[in-house]
Amino acid sequence: MSFAHVVYLSGGVGGARLLDGMARVLAPEALSAIVNTGDDLTHWGLRVCPDIDTVLYTLSGLGDAKRGWGLRGESFRALEGVARYGGESWFQLGDRDLATHIVRSERLRKGETLTAITARLARALGVDCTVLPMCDEPLETCIVTEQNGTLAFQDWLVHHRAQPLVREVLFHGDAQPTPQVLAALERAELIVIGPSNPYVSVDPILSLPGLRSALAGKPVVALSPIVGGKAVKGPLAEMIPRLAGRPASAVAIAAHYGSLLTGLVVERGDGGELAGRDGVRVLETRTVMGGRRGRVRLAREVLAFAEELAADRQRARLPPALTKGDVP
Amino acid sequence: MSFAHVVYLSGGVGGARLLDGMARVLAPEALSAIVNTGDDLTHWGLRVCPDIDTVLYTLSGLGDAKRGWGLRGESFRALEGVARYGGESWFQLGDRDLATHIVRSERLRKGETLTAITARLARALGVDCTVLPMCDEPLETCIVTEQNGTLAFQDWLVHHRAQPLVREVLFHGDAQPTPQVLAALERAELIVIGPSNPYVSVDPILSLPGLRSALAGKPVVALSPIVGGKAVKGPLAEMIPRLAGRPASAVAIAAHYGSLLTGLVVERGDGGELAGRDGVRVLETRTVMGGRRGRVRLAREVLAFAEELAADRQRARLPPALTKGDVP
Repeated sequence: MSFAHVVYLSGGVGGARLLDGMARVLAPEALSAIVNTGDDLTHWGLRVCPDIDTVLYTLSGLGDAKRGWGLRGESFRALEGVARYGGESWFQLGDRDLATHIVRSERLRKGETLTAITARLARALGVDCTVLPMCDEPLETCIVTEQNGTLAFQDWLVHHRAQPLVREVLFHGDAQPTPQVLAALERAELIVIGPSNPYVSVDPILSLPGLRSALAGKPVVALSPIVGGKAVKGPLAEMIPRLAGRPASAVAIAAHYGSLLTGLVVERGDGGELAGRDGVRVLETRTVMGGRRGRVRLAREVLAFAEELAADRQRARLPPALTKGDVP
Repeated sequence: MSFAHVVYLSGGVGGARLLDGMARVLAPEALSAIVNTGDDLTHWGLRVCPDIDTVLYTLSGLGDAKRGWGLRGESFRALEGVARYGGESWFQLGDRDLATHIVRSERLRKGETLTAITARLARALGVDCTVLPMCDEPLETCIVTEQNGTLAFQDWLVHHRAQPLVREVLFHGDAQPTPQVLAALERAELIVIGPSNPYVSVDPILSLPGLRSALAGKPVVALSPIVGGKAVKGPLAEMIPRLAGRPASAVAIAAHYGSLLTGLVVERGDGGELAGRDGVRVLETRTVMGGRRGRVRLAREVLAFAEELAADRQRARLPPALTKGDVP
């Protein structure tokens, strides 16, 4: 079988990379990404959506693959100027990147939804799968720290370099999943949770009212963003012990998503610890993608794994006689 | 004599050039510029003050002298990006220039006055004379056109390329001259009106309540921005016949400012038409400045001319016996 419609839950860098692989394997109409907007911030008076931007730039092939965020060949002349004036220069916005935030902010002021604006930006960048912000209203991921009180996510991550110890992650705001998100989930035959930080990239999506129940009964395959006890990028490895009280590992990821998961894709060598764990099927493979070829390879493996799970599930649903091959 | 304090009324390009000359001739504490803000606009959500910026960039030596606006060696990558997205790209904001608008807009949002912000920007750019926006509140110069209704100034000038015929110039808003502007005028021993467009660069300043009476009794020397019947830059030559019902000429400039003027500086060959005109003294010289050397030369000539006028005025005030040299 192949899936008529896959919904992919994504944060930034890692999530965007595998999504890019998926977009090269699936037809545009067979793939919708639901992207975290909990990291969004208003900076320099502009609305910045780091995860949406990373997704759009990665899918369009314009992104800076090495840095993981922003555009390739970017310049930072506006930022240099702001720094010279003594303005806020802790959050790096490139000159071409600014265009995205300028256009987005203009359209938001005109009353367009973030969903509609994101679709326009995607079209202009030549992205042909569907990219959906998880919600149109602001929902702010906040980090409750041990020493510095509660910080907005980017303030904690970038301004404070993820140094203040995390006590809790909170989502502020009264956001709803958009009709487009709910419709995409309704049509989904498979949900893939990208190798994103569960606490700050995926949980904001899952925290939206009605989101978890929209997933109910669908096969959900997640990718572990922990590889050999470390996060490929970002502060996840330090967050897990503090938030889950256990070491950073694929087990912690499996435990975090719990009964939501049908399958978990983990790095080679990380599967052993999951052996004998009930309810979740595990695929061990090379999850660190590198370039586009690696992304496509991993996307294919994830989809093949999900097809296997779906086939097994279908077999399990058939009456016992039929599973033995007795076609009536 | 030399002037302890000169106040210079300025628009953009031409005004900024002579101001730059003045700043090289006068001590920093002896020069305050009052700059038109009627052209200001909110673009891309950023507050842009074209005349203040041209003044700051020209005084700091960072301006693009050829183009007359913006910064030298500027790039336009954000603008290119906005155009690619189909966003508003009619008003050209450069990447480094953006920093000025970003920092200004941030500080305005925080409640700082345009006056305080301009002082900060000036300091950061190494400008040491005083640069004052004419007011802190928005005052919008509007062009009432024959065919396109009423347009905001930059919309008319840049977006419509100054093509719609001008019927009238209006100033919208309830602005007051700032305390700093009034204090500078109070201390002024000489007012110089730069070679700026009288209708759209100087009149907004003069239109502020109390401004004209603050000039009363002070020597006022203006520079004609009309040279041989043409404007050095901008749409002035076409505006004069429509707004004043006479050809573009130094006479039209003299008539426009009327009794406000003590002296008028005009281009070589343009003075003849002013001969015999009561009440205004005329200096004929090369008013087209070119580079910094030309600016300094003209500034010196203007100041020398003003000193002459002031000396004559002082002589005229002395009782008749004394003018004959009979020191009591």
